[in-house]
Amino acid sequence: MDSNKLTPSEVLIDALEYIKKFRDQIFVIKFGGEVMVDEKVLDAVAEDLLLLRYVNIKPVVVHGGGGEISAAMDKFGKKPHFVKGLRVTDEETMDIVQMVLAGKLNNDIVASVNKHGGHAVGISGKSAKLFSAEKVANEEDVDLGFVGEITEVNADLVRTLVEKGYIPVISPIGIAADGSSLNINADVAASKLAVELKASKLILLTGVEGVLSKEGKLIKSLTSEEAGNLIASGVAKAGMIPKLTECIYAIKHGVPKAHIIKAKKHSILEEIFTSEGTGTMVEEK
Amino acid sequence: MDSNKLTPSEVLIDALEYIKKFRDQIFVIKFGGEVMVDEKVLDAVAEDLLLLRYVNIKPVVVHGGGGEISAAMDKFGKKPHFVKGLRVTDEETMDIVQMVLAGKLNNDIVASVNKHGGHAVGISGKSAKLFSAEKVANEEDVDLGFVGEITEVNADLVRTLVEKGYIPVISPIGIAADGSSLNINADVAASKLAVELKASKLILLTGVEGVLSKEGKLIKSLTSEEAGNLIASGVAKAGMIPKLTECIYAIKHGVPKAHIIKAKKHSILEEIFTSEGTGTMVEEK
Amino acid sequence: MDSNKLTPSEVLIDALEYIKKFRDQIFVIKFGGEVMVDEKVLDAVAEDLLLLRYVNIKPVVVHGGGGEISAAMDKFGKKPHFVKGLRVTDEETMDIVQMVLAGKLNNDIVASVNKHGGHAVGISGKSAKLFSAEKVANEEDVDLGFVGEITEVNADLVRTLVEKGYIPVISPIGIAADGSSLNINADVAASKLAVELKASKLILLTGVEGVLSKEGKLIKSLTSEEAGNLIASGVAKAGMIPKLTECIYAIKHGVPKAHIIKAKKHSILEEIFTSEGTGTMVEEK
Amino acid sequence: MDSNKLTPSEVLIDALEYIKKFRDQIFVIKFGGEVMVDEKVLDAVAEDLLLLRYVNIKPVVVHGGGGEISAAMDKFGKKPHFVKGLRVTDEETMDIVQMVLAGKLNNDIVASVNKHGGHAVGISGKSAKLFSAEKVANEEDVDLGFVGEITEVNADLVRTLVEKGYIPVISPIGIAADGSSLNINADVAASKLAVELKASKLILLTGVEGVLSKEGKLIKSLTSEEAGNLIASGVAKAGMIPKLTECIYAIKHGVPKAHIIKAKKHSILEEIFTSEGTGTMVEEK
Amino acid sequence: MDSNKLTPSEVLIDALEYIKKFRDQIFVIKFGGEVMVDEKVLDAVAEDLLLLRYVNIKPVVVHGGGGEISAAMDKFGKKPHFVKGLRVTDEETMDIVQMVLAGKLNNDIVASVNKHGGHAVGISGKSAKLFSAEKVANEEDVDLGFVGEITEVNADLVRTLVEKGYIPVISPIGIAADGSSLNINADVAASKLAVELKASKLILLTGVEGVLSKEGKLIKSLTSEEAGNLIASGVAKAGMIPKLTECIYAIKHGVPKAHIIKAKKHSILEEIFTSEGTGTMVEEK
Amino acid sequence: MDSNKLTPSEVLIDALEYIKKFRDQIFVIKFGGEVMVDEKVLDAVAEDLLLLRYVNIKPVVVHGGGGEISAAMDKFGKKPHFVKGLRVTDEETMDIVQMVLAGKLNNDIVASVNKHGGHAVGISGKSAKLFSAEKVANEEDVDLGFVGEITEVNADLVRTLVEKGYIPVISPIGIAADGSSLNINADVAASKLAVELKASKLILLTGVEGVLSKEGKLIKSLTSEEAGNLIASGVAKAGMIPKLTECIYAIKHGVPKAHIIKAKKHSILEEIFTSEGTGTMVEEK
Repeated sequence: MDSNKLTPSEVLIDALEYIKKFRDQIFVIKFGGEVMVDEKVLDAVAEDLLLLRYVNIKPVVVHGGGGEISAAMDKFGKKPHFVKGLRVTDEETMDIVQMVLAGKLNNDIVASVNKHGGHAVGISGKSAKLFSAEKVANEEDVDLGFVGEITEVNADLVRTLVEKGYIPVISPIGIAADGSSLNINADVAASKLAVELKASKLILLTGVEGVLSKEGKLIKSLTSEEAGNLIASGVAKAGMIPKLTECIYAIKHGVPKAHIIKAKKHSILEEIFTSEGTGTMVEEK
Repeated sequence: MDSNKLTPSEVLIDALEYIKKFRDQIFVIKFGGEVMVDEKVLDAVAEDLLLLRYVNIKPVVVHGGGGEISAAMDKFGKKPHFVKGLRVTDEETMDIVQMVLAGKLNNDIVASVNKHGGHAVGISGKSAKLFSAEKVANEEDVDLGFVGEITEVNADLVRTLVEKGYIPVISPIGIAADGSSLNINADVAASKLAVELKASKLILLTGVEGVLSKEGKLIKSLTSEEAGNLIASGVAKAGMIPKLTECIYAIKHGVPKAHIIKAKKHSILEEIFTSEGTGTMVEEK
Repeated sequence: MDSNKLTPSEVLIDALEYIKKFRDQIFVIKFGGEVMVDEKVLDAVAEDLLLLRYVNIKPVVVHGGGGEISAAMDKFGKKPHFVKGLRVTDEETMDIVQMVLAGKLNNDIVASVNKHGGHAVGISGKSAKLFSAEKVANEEDVDLGFVGEITEVNADLVRTLVEKGYIPVISPIGIAADGSSLNINADVAASKLAVELKASKLILLTGVEGVLSKEGKLIKSLTSEEAGNLIASGVAKAGMIPKLTECIYAIKHGVPKAHIIKAKKHSILEEIFTSEGTGTMVEEK
Repeated sequence: MDSNKLTPSEVLIDALEYIKKFRDQIFVIKFGGEVMVDEKVLDAVAEDLLLLRYVNIKPVVVHGGGGEISAAMDKFGKKPHFVKGLRVTDEETMDIVQMVLAGKLNNDIVASVNKHGGHAVGISGKSAKLFSAEKVANEEDVDLGFVGEITEVNADLVRTLVEKGYIPVISPIGIAADGSSLNINADVAASKLAVELKASKLILLTGVEGVLSKEGKLIKSLTSEEAGNLIASGVAKAGMIPKLTECIYAIKHGVPKAHIIKAKKHSILEEIFTSEGTGTMVEEK
Repeated sequence: MDSNKLTPSEVLIDALEYIKKFRDQIFVIKFGGEVMVDEKVLDAVAEDLLLLRYVNIKPVVVHGGGGEISAAMDKFGKKPHFVKGLRVTDEETMDIVQMVLAGKLNNDIVASVNKHGGHAVGISGKSAKLFSAEKVANEEDVDLGFVGEITEVNADLVRTLVEKGYIPVISPIGIAADGSSLNINADVAASKLAVELKASKLILLTGVEGVLSKEGKLIKSLTSEEAGNLIASGVAKAGMIPKLTECIYAIKHGVPKAHIIKAKKHSILEEIFTSEGTGTMVEEK
Repeated sequence: MDSNKLTPSEVLIDALEYIKKFRDQIFVIKFGGEVMVDEKVLDAVAEDLLLLRYVNIKPVVVHGGGGEISAAMDKFGKKPHFVKGLRVTDEETMDIVQMVLAGKLNNDIVASVNKHGGHAVGISGKSAKLFSAEKVANEEDVDLGFVGEITEVNADLVRTLVEKGYIPVISPIGIAADGSSLNINADVAASKLAVELKASKLILLTGVEGVLSKEGKLIKSLTSEEAGNLIASGVAKAGMIPKLTECIYAIKHGVPKAHIIKAKKHSILEEIFTSEGTGTMVEEK
């Protein structure tokens, strides 16, 4: 059925059912670089976040920022270096990561929401020890430096903000036992936070329409087992692998549904409030 | 009377009186660059903040960061330029300001507090529209760029954090109507916030012992009128002028006491909990 | 603009704005005989009431029942007799009125809602003295008998039911000082109740599309002054006169908007949640 | 001991003990046709209900109405037909049952209480799905029609009304899965509701003084076993059998005491507040 | 009408009306020496206090103790000395007064109530500064010593106890600014406390039936003006004068009714819960 | 380390740690005769109680009074008589005990606290049946009379007072089933109350510095086992034996720490808020 052929009443009836279903629930939404690179996209997505609050859905944003970090390092005259997909992060690089994520991108998202009101609150994962972390082990004898793995999620602050009607916007920076900052993967941070918050949905906003089949067709729905097979069989590639991995993680740990959808105008609303949706939904069989 | 000659019981009795007096009250504490430049000082001050929470005093931190900003600009190959003491702030400079303040310094303060627990929460003045602002007028026909004046303080978020037991750590960045960031003077942000929060104290941590008389002696207590005279007569100089100005502002708008004290180990505690104090206190006659 | 040409997203955006606007507000909806005469219409309207509750709108139903009363009188071998549009109501007739309204029609509406859940609660205006009333004066020297005018509305019971998530369904029977039942006009009961409850809307469901102009075209929007003129000029006729009169009364006493719409599938939803609407809306200029 | 010989103080002391004991507890009181046939009796009983509320006892009324139903059927030209004591109830008869119970008798009781205040709220068992029911099986190959058995009692609405200080007055009409009305025995409805509400007492108001022994003497107190024996031995006859059956049911399911007393002026008060009582009390040994 | 001729139902109906009227209200009851001199009387009165709590009336007891004090002084070899009816109270005498009132009599009353439960809590007027007082001026050049007048009533403690379901039992000892104890007249303490607590009744328990007329007949009801006339005309004599004076004081300051009744079994209940009463009631015309 | 050599800051830091630790906790403090015999000591201790309330510590006082009782008996011409350390208490003696404890000493303590505010509330153990008790068995065939052992502690009243910010001051008088008063050992009453209240500390104020070793040196810290050994080995003598016994009892029943310290100016504060303390602390190993 094509939702464009629904009458307004039918759209309404559908939407009302979903609104009832998701009322008072938390959605964790991860913004990839694609959201932030284009101000129009960011503004459209911000508008959708506000609309979710109208019907008492509680969005929580975790953002990434790979591209901007490399650009900033370039300005500082530093060359990005990766080992097994992980950025080697010396102390100066960590300062840059932190400045770009918590200083620039976080404030950009907050600004985009708040020019229509005061709902967004930007924090880093160090605040209230949201993401306690420790350094990852060396890879190939290379000290990866300030790259961290989350050891504990303390989401009380996020719950407080959400209950008070705010939209938390979170930079994925962890805090080590000695207080130092650690660089955390944003997809991982989002899925762990979704689990801790008992969110109803994990939504990963990306630059593509969703997960594609071997034939290059959008897959609308996947079980976590099928998602695993896509990775194993090599159909899912590159950046889609960690996304599917985190969707599987979230679902295995109690989040009912995870979505991979394209960051564009109203794509969140269409995914949530229409039976057809717009991207790929992963759920347990 | 020299408080070093008090017996422990006398120190206790004094302290208990002050603890009773300040219970459940908010202190706005401004960290100047001197606090953050030395990790030992920062750690000592952070420890004091936690001790204040033990006795139900509610500290709120606003931080500055002039020195670090100039250093970062230097790395980016930009030269600081000031007109009448105000930093000319083009868009790229504003990005740097924001990255240094909200990205680096804010997270450093949060880390220093949170390695002993999870009490600090770092936010910028854009979150929840804490500091709505607009651009200042040109000075000497020079467009100062992204330098802002606070037009409205919306402290609901800060109140929520404080009530929940957190210590807010605030970067002085304002949000313009179009969502863009504006550079706000930290002393001004601290005094306006103190007024809005009906704080009991505004405490400015600096690099010097307090306000000095013409003879170079520490002045322990000043009325706001006397503070004004020190400025008018030229005894107060340079960086002390805006500090005294903000103390006077706070006091004229209902904050009972304002303090200028040196950032060092336990100086906050000694100022608050002993009758002698350590720096300069300004109050209405 | 034709709302059938809106994309689903546009319908959603519109609807979300209205949902935000009307959240937690009370709508008083009057069911005319046209709603109850056709079980399919009744079921469709009942479904809409449940959908309103999904988004925290609080519907309160007042129903009439002229046709059914006359039919029942006929069965009892009594002939309806009207003076100036008011039914002459002797004691036996009042018994029949009460039995049809509170015994039959009220239970039919409750059943239609409750087969999908347990939200509807049927009461008469005698319960908790919802509608205190006294007999109207004679007309043309005819004792109209048990025909009443509302002297006081005590809506505490209705508020309690609404707060607990129930949908009150109210038969317009008043209670006299001596406890006897009085026959109350349902449009009047609905508008007085809307005023007392500070409802956001009074919605009169009828058998026609709305108010028609002299040219027989649906008028989508009217000020209360224009509504008065339609009555004065004779354009509004017969049954539409008391409906417009009660819309004007409600609006003059603080209800922001009153609607006259056709009782049919989803007409309530379309009137409330789309900018175009389906019937006639009356509001202060 | 004859309570008429007690001094006023002794009556008071007794009453105060009972008032303490029953404070904040629910009594389910069933009104038989005898209460409603005589307006003076109804008014006297209504007054007692109000007095119970003065001392924070919470009466809930369930009413029957056999006689009135037959009279109304007669007016409609229909002949009552019974199989094994159950009224054969075709659709038209069910309409009449509903109109008499929920339309007339319920409103009469509400009126009698509310002319002294606004405490009574009349509802049918269809409201908020209070009595979910299904049709009883055929008896002697006769389709009994709309005669129902309670399958579930949902008393949330009743609890809400009682907590808010109202006196619920309930017509024993059940709601089937398809929303249709089913005729429910009032004694059964009262005892099932008493059990669901964890009432302290089930009180059946009848036309006789209480249960009589073989010798025709009033039995003041019975165990449930003795009550069963009275039925088995044929001493209890006709209408007393279902009353005793429901008393036994209530007691077996946790209601501490069940009473069968004559509907007359202050008989409820005397039964509750004096040690002697006026009718028959059934309790577990 | 003789309440002994009322049927139990009539007694009940009367009582229920009063119970409704006085629910949740405070009665201040003063125990004279007559209550405490006879253990049987004390026990009967204690039982009545408990019965009042059953129906949510909140008794507060203030007790006197003249006779016992003189007896104790005698044991200590001290001779009572009075000037204008006021006991000359040197420091040793004050110690005796305090020991007899707060040490012995207060504990006796508490014991009498508490052997039936734990409702009574004995305190002196020094606790929580219930009765702040200062020494009265000399009379006839005699220093009356530790005789005090109440300067402030701080009844927060009493309210707390009453709200928690306790029956406060209060010894009329005042606290001076320097912490010393002052002897306070119990009738005065009771009437001032009744005013401060906004009590519904002040009840003075005495050794006589009530106020007598010139002819020696019990007066059942008096206005405050008539009470004043009885004092002025000399009909009221000796101990009745201060009692009437305090009744008038209480009534002039907002206590609706004051009672003077004989301390005997159930006299409090009969005065409160029957329309006839047992002693003298004073109220504004 | 000598706390007199601490700087004020160090004293403060120490104190703040303890204040945090003990916030909202109850300390039961027993006043021996030494506190009450000297008004200056009593005033100094009272001041400390108020200071504890400043930092939300909740002191509860139980007092003794052996010396005063004997003195009062002497005045009444009665000779104290002891069997195995227990005072033989005939009815007249019990009256004197009660008058001295609840009448005199309790009011003296209350006065000492309340001349600085209204925080103290004096009660006996009979109020609200705080200490239910029964007579102890005969010793050496002597009827000890009104000497009691606590059979139940009902501390609801004390909890209420403490929550409302009051400082309860309790006379150790028990209530027997028949309401009569029983003489209770104050150390025992204090330790049982500490256990019931789940107090953090039991503090026994005495006339000596603390527990002394065989060599006559103050022992600063003891395990309960070591405390038992001191009794068994005869090092602890006379009045110290019951004190140590009650410290052991409290600790065995969940009170973390028990202290025996000298009643003098600020000794309570120094024991609680400095790491060195002033007397002997008993705790589980």
